[in-house]
Amino acid sequence: MSFDVDHHVAVFRRGADELLVETELRTKLARGEPLTIKEGFDPTRPDLHLGHTVQFNKLRQLQDLGHRIVFLIGDFTGLIGDPTGRNVTRPPLSREEIDANAKTYTDQVFLILDRDRTEVAFNSKWLSALGADGMIRLAARYTVARMLERDDFAKRFKSEQPIAIHEFLYPLAQGYDSVALEADVELGGTDQKFNLLVGRELQRHYGQEPQCILTLPLLEGLDGVNKMSKSLDNYVGITEAPASMFGKLMSISDTLMWRYYDLLSFRDAGEIAALRRECEAGRNPRDAKVMLAQEIVARFHSKGAAEAALSGFEARFREHKVPDDMPEVTLHAGGPGMPIAQLARQAGVVESTSEALRLIAQRGLRVDGDTVIDRALVVAAGTTVVVQAGKRRFARVTVK
Amino acid sequence: MSFDVDHHVAVFRRGADELLVETELRTKLARGEPLTIKEGFDPTRPDLHLGHTVQFNKLRQLQDLGHRIVFLIGDFTGLIGDPTGRNVTRPPLSREEIDANAKTYTDQVFLILDRDRTEVAFNSKWLSALGADGMIRLAARYTVARMLERDDFAKRFKSEQPIAIHEFLYPLAQGYDSVALEADVELGGTDQKFNLLVGRELQRHYGQEPQCILTLPLLEGLDGVNKMSKSLDNYVGITEAPASMFGKLMSISDTLMWRYYDLLSFRDAGEIAALRRECEAGRNPRDAKVMLAQEIVARFHSKGAAEAALSGFEARFREHKVPDDMPEVTLHAGGPGMPIAQLARQAGVVESTSEALRLIAQRGLRVDGDTVIDRALVVAAGTTVVVQAGKRRFARVTVK
Repeated sequence: MSFDVDHHVAVFRRGADELLVETELRTKLARGEPLTIKEGFDPTRPDLHLGHTVQFNKLRQLQDLGHRIVFLIGDFTGLIGDPTGRNVTRPPLSREEIDANAKTYTDQVFLILDRDRTEVAFNSKWLSALGADGMIRLAARYTVARMLERDDFAKRFKSEQPIAIHEFLYPLAQGYDSVALEADVELGGTDQKFNLLVGRELQRHYGQEPQCILTLPLLEGLDGVNKMSKSLDNYVGITEAPASMFGKLMSISDTLMWRYYDLLSFRDAGEIAALRRECEAGRNPRDAKVMLAQEIVARFHSKGAAEAALSGFEARFREHKVPDDMPEVTLHAGGPGMPIAQLARQAGVVESTSEALRLIAQRGLRVDGDTVIDRALVVAAGTTVVVQAGKRRFARVTVK
Repeated sequence: MSFDVDHHVAVFRRGADELLVETELRTKLARGEPLTIKEGFDPTRPDLHLGHTVQFNKLRQLQDLGHRIVFLIGDFTGLIGDPTGRNVTRPPLSREEIDANAKTYTDQVFLILDRDRTEVAFNSKWLSALGADGMIRLAARYTVARMLERDDFAKRFKSEQPIAIHEFLYPLAQGYDSVALEADVELGGTDQKFNLLVGRELQRHYGQEPQCILTLPLLEGLDGVNKMSKSLDNYVGITEAPASMFGKLMSISDTLMWRYYDLLSFRDAGEIAALRRECEAGRNPRDAKVMLAQEIVARFHSKGAAEAALSGFEARFREHKVPDDMPEVTLHAGGPGMPIAQLARQAGVVESTSEALRLIAQRGLRVDGDTVIDRALVVAAGTTVVVQAGKRRFARVTVK
């Protein structure tokens, strides 16, 4: 076999943060053998959003180039949990829980990766086999000073926040995964760079050619500012319904759209560049946004679902066309959010909360185009919504 | 059962460096149950000298009070060796080597401890059983910052000398030994204080009453200055021949003799105090030195051997009585030592090296009363010897 090395390197680099070391990657690729590409995932978080898929997309692109993808589930640390007991969200998991999580995880991931060409591995296989003595031998391979160079450790050490000693063992365990798998490349988020470098070093210790590392950026959420996360409610879940997924993607800014193209689309880089040039020359960016939203809905649902989502979106758009100008109101919730009836009254689209409740009963109150059914609906603080009473009364309300 | 708590505490304290915490020890003793007293030993050093016995003597004293002594062999770390490979003197040992070492070790130790009332334990039993995950859980019990408070770590960290991460795991493993044994007291050298304190803390974590710790000083060597050690050649090996052991002990200074009484003699503290008063009142301290040397030879050989050693020593003393005043000479070896013929000439007891060699052939040259047989004898730098040519020519020579 022989690879088009320049093309492969370009696919590695697209949207990536850092590739270390390109010359080494070229040497590996020049051999014409599929590379073993590894990424580790925590088995405790099976409910994925588009932010997580940035990593999977890259794995898929590399899979499509013919490389060997190892989807590594870090069950070893999952079995341990947080032994300090400080982190209640990390209890130790049972074997059964981990297997169930892993299945939920991979079921979602295989919407992106090709199931038949992906190896799923569990690191407890070799890490448990290390034993207490093997863990000590592993720990002998790295110094305290070098571990304290990791950004978060350095900060905590300097500010005298405690670092438990086992936290030093986790990067080593992760690095040992690369030794066990004889990885050629390891992928990770930018926050993983240090750990990925530990893998390089341990491989050298064990007489292996060190892996290349590829870091990918964190995806911004729908707000275009913060990283996508559940807790900030700026995410698109990959199991979300087609209409919701489509609508959320249509709501992003044009700038963010191009970022999402880079990190989420499987379209060829050249194709995207052409589309971008067309928009810059006058084509409505809404066309590009529709293409992106359809691609993503099709990936996680189907082409049919993507078509239906578009039709539904357009129908609703025509039906509930929001006027270009409307009053802008800022309200203070004085708590986690504001009940919808109170919001409608304070925004001035109804005269009283009782009118609001009557309108809800008659299905005449909308939030962001959606009919309000639940009179107990609370609009969360920190969000901006368009509230509509009847056909003509609109307000854009920011709840603080 | 009930203990004379004051008496027990006095026996703990005799010759000791530090006892933490006396009030806790009193509480434990007041229960009237034998305490579990633990000390760990490295299985790689089976050839013991009197310096090592300071620890065993204390264990024996406590054993005689009715406490339970656990002689713990640290075979777990012995099996690992020095995984950094930097320390060639610590290769990993096989199970067979460890067992052989342990037998050599305990055979020597049972010259002091009562074999029938001593439990010999191996920490691999529980440390291997920890597994890699247990080692991580253990490491979660202590912070990096607190570990760096240990003197030698603090110094190395400050001076940017590398500390391998596994070095942080050893104090925890040693502390875990105390948990596994449910130790009431742990003994160690003063250099072990930090590690012993880690044991206290881990026991608390595991819901046990923390152990008390007792540190004992390092014994000075025959020079009265440096700690006793093979490499400084200022030691008395416990398997040394009676005459050699006796002669070495007779050579120490009076000040050092009282120190040795404290740390090496099993005589009652009151008895020693009385003897000391007698010497201060005019009794020849040589009598006290003979008593000490006899006690120690008897311990490691027999009463008969002690008597014979004394007779031999006195006969030799009479025969080769060294004059009280003789020239004191300091010579510079310019290397690890000085050949005997050269030394004799430079010290002025012979006219030439050829005279020295002739005298050696005629068995007429002595060093410290011993006839020189080997003309290639080298007197080590850093030592002081009495050299004697024929009957009358003496010099006290210090080789630098």
